[in-house]
Order: sequence, then structure tokens, then C-alpha cells
Amino acid sequence: MVQYSLAEVLHPESIAIVGASETNVGGGYVSALLKLGYKGKIYPVHPKYLEVKGITCYPTMHDIPGNVSFVISSIPATHVLNLIDDCVLKGVKCIQFFTARFSETGRKDAIELEKEVLRRAKNAGIRIIGPNCMGVYYPAGGISWGANMSNKPGLMGFISQSGSLAHELIETAETRGLYCSKAFSYGNAIDFNECDYLEYLGRDAETKVIIMYIEGVRDGKRFLDTLRKTTKKKPVIILKGGRGKSGTRATASHTASLAGSMEVWNTVMKQAGVISAAHVDELLDVASTFYFSLPTFGNHIGVVGLGGGGTVTAADLCEEAGLAVIPLPNEIREELRKQGNPIWDWVTNPVDSSILPKDSAPGIIAKMMAENPNFDLSLIFIDPKINRHPMTSDVLIKKFLLDDLKTKPLFVVLLDRGRSVIDTTGEYNKTLIGLTTKLIEEHIPSYPTAARAANALGKMVNYYKKQRVELKSQ
Amino acid sequence: MVQYSLAEVLHPESIAIVGASETNVGGGYVSALLKLGYKGKIYPVHPKYLEVKGITCYPTMHDIPGNVSFVISSIPATHVLNLIDDCVLKGVKCIQFFTARFSETGRKDAIELEKEVLRRAKNAGIRIIGPNCMGVYYPAGGISWGANMSNKPGLMGFISQSGSLAHELIETAETRGLYCSKAFSYGNAIDFNECDYLEYLGRDAETKVIIMYIEGVRDGKRFLDTLRKTTKKKPVIILKGGRGKSGTRATASHTASLAGSMEVWNTVMKQAGVISAAHVDELLDVASTFYFSLPTFGNHIGVVGLGGGGTVTAADLCEEAGLAVIPLPNEIREELRKQGNPIWDWVTNPVDSSILPKDSAPGIIAKMMAENPNFDLSLIFIDPKINRHPMTSDVLIKKFLLDDLKTKPLFVVLLDRGRSVIDTTGEYNKTLIGLTTKLIEEHIPSYPTAARAANALGKMVNYYKKQRVELKSQ
Repeated sequence: MVQYSLAEVLHPESIAIVGASETNVGGGYVSALLKLGYKGKIYPVHPKYLEVKGITCYPTMHDIPGNVSFVISSIPATHVLNLIDDCVLKGVKCIQFFTARFSETGRKDAIELEKEVLRRAKNAGIRIIGPNCMGVYYPAGGISWGANMSNKPGLMGFISQSGSLAHELIETAETRGLYCSKAFSYGNAIDFNECDYLEYLGRDAETKVIIMYIEGVRDGKRFLDTLRKTTKKKPVIILKGGRGKSGTRATASHTASLAGSMEVWNTVMKQAGVISAAHVDELLDVASTFYFSLPTFGNHIGVVGLGGGGTVTAADLCEEAGLAVIPLPNEIREELRKQGNPIWDWVTNPVDSSILPKDSAPGIIAKMMAENPNFDLSLIFIDPKINRHPMTSDVLIKKFLLDDLKTKPLFVVLLDRGRSVIDTTGEYNKTLIGLTTKLIEEHIPSYPTAARAANALGKMVNYYKKQRVELKSQ
Repeated sequence: MVQYSLAEVLHPESIAIVGASETNVGGGYVSALLKLGYKGKIYPVHPKYLEVKGITCYPTMHDIPGNVSFVISSIPATHVLNLIDDCVLKGVKCIQFFTARFSETGRKDAIELEKEVLRRAKNAGIRIIGPNCMGVYYPAGGISWGANMSNKPGLMGFISQSGSLAHELIETAETRGLYCSKAFSYGNAIDFNECDYLEYLGRDAETKVIIMYIEGVRDGKRFLDTLRKTTKKKPVIILKGGRGKSGTRATASHTASLAGSMEVWNTVMKQAGVISAAHVDELLDVASTFYFSLPTFGNHIGVVGLGGGGTVTAADLCEEAGLAVIPLPNEIREELRKQGNPIWDWVTNPVDSSILPKDSAPGIIAKMMAENPNFDLSLIFIDPKINRHPMTSDVLIKKFLLDDLKTKPLFVVLLDRGRSVIDTTGEYNKTLIGLTTKLIEEHIPSYPTAARAANALGKMVNYYKKQRVELKSQ
């Protein structure tokens, strides 16, 4: 019997959403497909309704005219075996089970039911995504689990064992300009599992960076092999859930997967070239770095800060992350002297731009650093409320980022200091959003604090260093 | 000759601001004193103006009628020696030098000038704050360096070598409900130094928590002695600036202080009972924990999260920070069963409240945890946009924080996920601010992410554990 691949099931001619009503999650999937512009046929299935979300609803799978290639199940677990039988008759290639309460409950009958689901589907050559998951988010294909999700395709591939984490992360990522090529919330992974999704995204030309939230692995050997191959081609950043005692306890009840010792995990991940993240913010910081930046093969960084202590701390954090905050090269000092800068012999790297003369934009020194062969990358601070008077984004970009600054990888700390949270007029946030949008357009990664920037840059530099070593040794 | 103490110079009868004009920093100090309601006489001094900020300006110190106890200098470094001579004649007790460009420039003549400033002041019995600093912020005394700073006194004492960092940190702290008892930006510290400020705040009844930003120490022995004494009475959290090669280079040009090896630093800080922070956010997270919370002498934590992956990760982060996320005690399970909760045998600690039945508020389980003797503290997640429909703060608090939940230390993760930054209508932020305000009123510390909460709680628990051990051994 044919085993459809993930690539084959991802472009369905038609999708049936079984159990969809006007108000439930099934109906949410219908809205999502309509809203994101899915091009195939959409068939809501529910015995009680003639219409759902303005389109014809069918009482059973059998009543659907024509073939159904992909099914989204939002019916209770007790009904899924009948559903599979119906799907066999309609020639369905893949069922995505939003339906939960299987092995993740830890209950014996639920575990048995899950096994039976897999057995029946396998016998019929039907592939399964989930159960206990949100499923596929594929903006370019118009497939999603939420009508409020973006239809804008991006370069980030995302694999998540947790559906809520997937949803939350995608929302947060978009505020930073990170959009998904494809995302998979895969839940209990009884058929397609983390290896399949990883292999797929590794080969996917639309995916530049892969991020994963993973609690446990079904097939350790295959997972490691796939990781090793994939990290040679593109960065893979993994947030491991269930790292401690309680986490393991919680993952057991959450997705019923097995987690090994963290020591072993960390070692094999490192060997496989994986970048680890401890939480969602770190996952997104590192993803954003790879998403927007050019590769950098050196670690010599120029830091242009905004004030004494903050600049010093930023340099500390960069060094602690493995970057080299090299002394200011003499030729830059010399150039500053020629320009008549009265503190030419006092400026150092990191640059405290608060001591610069008023007419000397920090961007001028940042530009000298970018053009100087001793520097590999630069980190520059922008305060949207500099001098405590908000300026328009254009002025800020002009002051800080000269047009021709981007000859080398450039990164920005967009210092917020809690001000966006207390902005009830929207004025400050408009400035901040203007800046963020401009930086995204210019493919400049930005971070809210120096600590987060330094950590992400360190991880990026380390990844490319390892890649270069491997290229050389080949 | 009498050596005035810091306590003696902090309540001046009158303040002269030398070099004040309508538009310069000196004028800013005048505005600040007027705005914060300083009760003594305010004397702007400038040869060119008759009035500054609406009050009489005097051409020289000699023209001021009556005594001057405290002077703020904002004149150029080249003029300071004459100023000291004038101050001697007026019986000044203390000069705060905003004036900079002394030893921090690394230039020989500037270093010499600084030495001469100290020599002359010492001879006349005048104490010095700075130079190269913002000076004193004492809201209850109406003294500050910025008219837009709060006049609300708080419980946090703050000592900062960097003026810009002090200013930024105070602004950020206020967005979290943290206000200062006193803050000192002390710059080059040629007379009053970090030990004097620390000793003062250690004894100060208005100060509950002390935070410091420090680049280098003048008198290591006295500093350690003072720290040891102070940390027995109240928590001291230190952000060390200049931890690496470049940082040391930058601090040399910034405040001309000497920094030793970080290994030695970390060891002695730990021995002295100091809590270290790597950056400003961490400094404030930990400060906020001590500022608002009751002490906790155990590390058994209950975690009530919002969704699968996020909850698992939160538990991981808590364990990694040294907290024990203990299994849910049987008596709580039993109680859930009695209440007819259909998943009573499935709920664990951490609690994934997304799997709870719709009528079961997360607060109910949080309350059971708080009342159960096995738990020492609780961490509960609030999403201001739960179910993706913003609710009013009152509903949220009711849903998540039952009135009688606070029998044990309680901490909140106020999940923002970047939404406040993209809010241009102010609607979302109003909800968030409402929540934040309510939590501050209730003395419940809150954090934007689980990672930051776990880290801060771990540091607090560790401090109190050490205190208890020391009490026992006495």
C-alpha cells in the first residue's frame, strides 16, 4: 500500500472539517480556511446544520459530493473510529485530529483507543497528524487553524508538540516580523512525527530557519540522523519542554511522550549542531537573528550604546556570549581626530554615545566600524524616546542608521524600558512600531534588551563557526 | 575639622544650583527641585540671568542672601576650583558635581584637576558627591535631578556609578510600581563613595531593598565589610558593570575605576550574601520580588499555567532556578474529585489550566495549593487577552486571583507576548495597566515571562534560605 508523504498530503484538493458548528473549534477551522483563501473545496460536516460559516454543511462524510483528500476532526474521541471508516470510503489521504483525550490522559482505555485509531488508519493507508494538536499552518496554501492568523508566508518553519505554545509563539513572532513558511502542531504524533516534519522542513526551499518545541522523541536514532543532516543546511533551534522532574510529569499528562535525561539530551543536541533555547523568547530571539541577518563568520563586534552603564553592561553581555568587543582600531581614532571630534582619543569600543558631541550621530562611528576590516558585525542601540522627546521613526533611523551602514551584519537593540506597556495613547507605540517596521523592511534584527541581543548573536556566530569548521574538514 | 556624614548633608536648608540657565542641565535641577516640592530655599546662580525657571537668579555665590548648605555644580570643569573657594566662604556642607570631564577622560590634566578639587574641599570640610554624576534623588525630601521624576517615595534604595543607567532604571522601575526611598548616582566618587552610600541605605529605615550598579570599588575591604553587615538586614542586589575585557576598557573611560577579576568578584560577592544580576531587567525582577513579597523560607512551588507547552516550560525554568515543583498532593486530588472535576486524576503540578473544565477557574486550584501545607509559594499565569477577547482587569483578577489566595507568597506572570508593543489604540494596554496596577496594590510581584519570574524567585528563596541558616548558626 502507498504511504503518502507529508509533502503529498500538504496540498489537498479538498478539506472536510468533521464536527464543525458555527461556534466550536471545528467552525474555527472552516473560518480559517475561508479567511486565508484556501483554494480547494471546503466541506463542513455536522449532522445538525445545513450551513456553517456561510457554506454548505454535510450531515455525514458520505453526503459530500466528490473526493475528500484531507480531513480535520473536531469530534469527540469516542466517535473517531467511525470517522476513520467513513474516511476509508471517501479515499482520504490524511486526517488531522484536533480531537484529544487519548494517551495524554494517562488512562488505559484512551491509550487503547489511540492504538486502534492508528491501526485502522494504517490498514487503510491514511496518514495521521496528531491527535491532540492544532495541525497544519501553511499560509501560502491557505491552511490554518485560526481565522486571525496571517496569510503572509515567511521563512520560518515551526514544529511544535504543544498546540497552545504554537499558537502563542506564532502571534508573538509576527510582532517581530517573523512569519512561517509552514508550522506543524503535532500533539501525540502517533503517525507523522517530529522526524517527518523536520525532514520535510529541512528539504523545503521556502524554509530558511527551523524552530521546534519538543517534549519527547519517539525514534531517537532517526531524530538525531535527521537533525545532523538538517543543521548542515539550515539552523535548527530547539526548545525542549520537560527538562526537569515536574516537566517530565507534566509532559506525561500533556502529550504522553518520553523524555530522557537532560544531560544526554544536551550532549547529543550539541553534537548534532542544534541550537538550544530555554524559553520562547530565546527561541524567537535566535530565530530572528538567522531569519534576517547575513551569515557572519567572525565574532569581532562593534557596540554603539546610549549611555555609560548601559553600554558597559552591553559589552559585558556580548563578551559573556562569546563575542569579542575589540578595541577601537587606530585608523578610526585617527579619522575621528581628522573630523575634529574633540574626544577622538577618548572614544572606545563599546561606544558610549552619550559622551559624543551633539552634532556627532552615533551612526557615524557605527559606519566607520562597519567599513573597517577588523569588525565582523555591529550592535547599535536605539532609544525611541531619545532625549525624552519622542521623534518620528524617520529621524531616528537617519540619526542612527545611515543608509550605507549595512555592509556587514547589523543588529539593533530597540530599548523600550517598559514604556510601551504604559502607553495608553498609542503615541509612543506608533513610534516604536514605525521603527520596528523599518528595521524589518531593512532586514535588521532587533531585540528589546542588550542581554537578549548578545545571547542571540553569540548563538548565531557559534553556529556559523561550526559550519565553517565542518566545511574545511570536508 | 567636622566631617559631615551623608545623613547630615541629605537634608539641606538651601540649595544653590551653580551654572543654571533656562535651557541647560543646571536649569533642569532647578525645575526638579521646584516640581518635587523641595521645602528649602532654591538659589540658581548664573552671571547672565536675573531669573531662572521663574525664580531669582544670583550672579555669584556671594550675592546669595543667607547660608547655602548644598551646592549643585553644572559649570564646566575649568571653573570648579573657584567655585570651591566661593563655597568655603558661604559655609557649604556638600557639593554635588554634575560637572564632568575629570579622571574619567583618562587625561593627565583632568586627573590632576580632580585631585585638586578633592584636596581643596577636604581642607574646607566640604563633602563631595560625584563628580561626573546626577547626584541625589530623594523624593520625600523633594530632591531630584529631573522634573519628570516621581515625587512618590518608595522602599528601594539605589546606588549607581552611572548616571544614565540610574535615570533609565528609575523610569523602568516605576512602570513596575517600584519607587525609590533614595537613589544616588555617584560617578567618580572622589569623596563619598559606594561604601558610604551602602552604609547609609543599610541603616535607612525607609529602605527595604538595596540595588546597586557598580563598575569598580575604591576600598575593597570596607566595601565587603559593609556588604556583609547590610545583607544580614536587607537584600542587596548588585549589577556589576565592566565584567569583561572591553567592559573594563569602557569603565576606565567612563568612571575611571578599577575592576578586579570577575572570578574573585563573584566569589566574594557570594560570600558576602550579595545577589548578583547580569543586566537591568534582572536587577529589577529580583528587586521587585523582594519589594512586594512576604519572605518565603521554603522552595516548594505550585505553578498554574495557561497552556500545555508554556506550562511545561515554566516548570522547567522553576526547577532550573532551584525551586521544587512538587507533585500535586493527594488531598488536593481528592478534593477535586469531590467537587466533581472530571479530570481530577489528570491534573498535576504544574497545572495546565487549558485542560480544566470551562467552569473551573485556575484560581480554585491555586487557592487549594496556597492553603495546602506542602506548598511555600505559588506562581500563576494571567493572559490579559485570554480566549483572545480582552476582558476588563476586574474580571481577570476575579477569574485568576480569588480574594483569599494570598495566604502564602504569590507571584504572577503577566503574559504579554509582544502585544503591548503593537497596540496603537491603547485598548490592550489599558487592560494590561489595569492588571499591573491591581497587582501592585495587592503587593503581588509580576513578571512578563516565566523565565524572568523563575529566575527572580530562585534568587529570593536562596537569599532567605541563607538568612535562615545564619540565624540558626548564631
